[in-house]
Amino acid sequence: MTLLLNGSLTKISGLNFRVQNEDERAMSEVAKIGVVTVSDRASRGEYEDRGGPAIREYLGEVLRSAWTDHPVIVSDEQADIEAAIIRLADDEGCCLIVTTGGTGPALRDVTPEATEAVCQKMMPGFGELMRQESLKYVPTAILSRQTAGIRGGALVVNLPGQPKAIAECLDAVFPAIPYCVDLIGGPYMTTNEDRLKAFRPKSARRPPASE
Amino acid sequence: MTLLLNGSLTKISGLNFRVQNEDERAMSEVAKIGVVTVSDRASRGEYEDRGGPAIREYLGEVLRSAWTDHPVIVSDEQADIEAAIIRLADDEGCCLIVTTGGTGPALRDVTPEATEAVCQKMMPGFGELMRQESLKYVPTAILSRQTAGIRGGALVVNLPGQPKAIAECLDAVFPAIPYCVDLIGGPYMTTNEDRLKAFRPKSARRPPASE
Amino acid sequence: MTLLLNGSLTKISGLNFRVQNEDERAMSEVAKIGVVTVSDRASRGEYEDRGGPAIREYLGEVLRSAWTDHPVIVSDEQADIEAAIIRLADDEGCCLIVTTGGTGPALRDVTPEATEAVCQKMMPGFGELMRQESLKYVPTAILSRQTAGIRGGALVVNLPGQPKAIAECLDAVFPAIPYCVDLIGGPYMTTNEDRLKAFRPKSARRPPASE
Repeated sequence: MTLLLNGSLTKISGLNFRVQNEDERAMSEVAKIGVVTVSDRASRGEYEDRGGPAIREYLGEVLRSAWTDHPVIVSDEQADIEAAIIRLADDEGCCLIVTTGGTGPALRDVTPEATEAVCQKMMPGFGELMRQESLKYVPTAILSRQTAGIRGGALVVNLPGQPKAIAECLDAVFPAIPYCVDLIGGPYMTTNEDRLKAFRPKSARRPPASE
Repeated sequence: MTLLLNGSLTKISGLNFRVQNEDERAMSEVAKIGVVTVSDRASRGEYEDRGGPAIREYLGEVLRSAWTDHPVIVSDEQADIEAAIIRLADDEGCCLIVTTGGTGPALRDVTPEATEAVCQKMMPGFGELMRQESLKYVPTAILSRQTAGIRGGALVVNLPGQPKAIAECLDAVFPAIPYCVDLIGGPYMTTNEDRLKAFRPKSARRPPASE
Repeated sequence: MTLLLNGSLTKISGLNFRVQNEDERAMSEVAKIGVVTVSDRASRGEYEDRGGPAIREYLGEVLRSAWTDHPVIVSDEQADIEAAIIRLADDEGCCLIVTTGGTGPALRDVTPEATEAVCQKMMPGFGELMRQESLKYVPTAILSRQTAGIRGGALVVNLPGQPKAIAECLDAVFPAIPYCVDLIGGPYMTTNEDRLKAFRPKSARRPPASE
């Protein structure tokens, strides 16, 4: 596993250093981020995964605080998608799990069902806003059934399969993600503010879980 | 219990008088409104409830027809929230039950789950519109999981916990509430039209249930 | 059953002809469309069905490729609505089933519940967009609980009962319907483009299922 710091690959031996300010504190808590590509063809190696790399590139651009990348490629089987989310949330301790693919109306598109099956709480606002954003580009945006939810300490967000749609959707919802991760007890994430500004209420400049 | 008439506290001994016109008729049917504050700290008395009073102040400003206020403060326990909604709907005969708090992504935020568990019908349009309105102010509006539903003769609407967000959300959905209450057989509610205009289709100037 | 071609009634003896171009090909696959009017009064003959005819008129205006109309009128009983959708999808082979009525908050409004009970996949984007469109006309649009889903090879879409609202809602979502039908293996539908433009991604000018 590699540690990505400010978007560049970095090897560091230890992460325990004195917390002095917000930046240092944020850096001391590495955000583990699961990236789940859902695709029959990519999982059989017949097709190069383009969704996963698009998500990682996006995160590298947007995140300022440290994060590690936990990639998985699974087929469009509900049981496999569920198992991947469970492992990333429960065993690997990811605070954010982003899926790509499997959100359409076709028979084998079951990512939203898998997400709902393993989450304790659903977050309907994510899907609503992402569809609304995508509608600015294509009227078929309503065919995406993408949703989001919470499993334990992880926020799970479905994204569409098309690399181009991934950045559009993430631009819409990412400003709310760091505060959401605060609220579920995860690390304090910061963004490159000239690229994307994360929003936190004034009363919550520090996450309640780590005070 | 106090009867609030046109926003001012009034004690009246009987409510049976000859129905002459819409205003009189509306006054003859008192709308019982439950206000459920969901907060661990407020329920233990460690924190002053600000959500409940903000809702009552709003209703006092907006409603022209008579209403009574049925306030409850409960902890963030799903069973307690469910019990409060059931009692207000089934025993106290409320036609409208408004909750505040417990709609976020945190572990103890379970108001939407409690609402869904006790409602026969869900009304997804309320949550969608309230999130969309709140998005005009903060990008974290998508973290609110607030919903609405129908239990018997009561419309149950979740609102966020922040007093400021309560009026924003109610301004968005309240124009549809009196007609919704008509459709579920409740009293004919009227509003102070210079503050907020309730909408009813022309064909429904009188509620079907009380004709 | 009558075959409607370009909006006019046509009797044709056979539909097997050489596929030469997109138009001919589209014509060779007749889209079977179920139209379910949900209304206690219309099902008892006390009230003339106006929703069903409004939908058929709309389809006649908008569709260029061939379609047949499969009309049903049922009462507001969940079991009857479910049975109608199942028969149209499974026995008659409809690729699109449109319902009208029964989407409100009243006791007997159960069309969304019936739809959800018989669909394998829900399509939340349809209801969201239709409510958003209707909100441009009336604030009570949020009271409509209309949804959409997939049952086998059929897309099921709930519409409101009012004839006027039917065209507003269909104008919003119809541009995405032909591509959705492609994705679930149905016939290639085309529209009268000066009336309404269906959208398909460039990569999907032909439906995957029939290649």
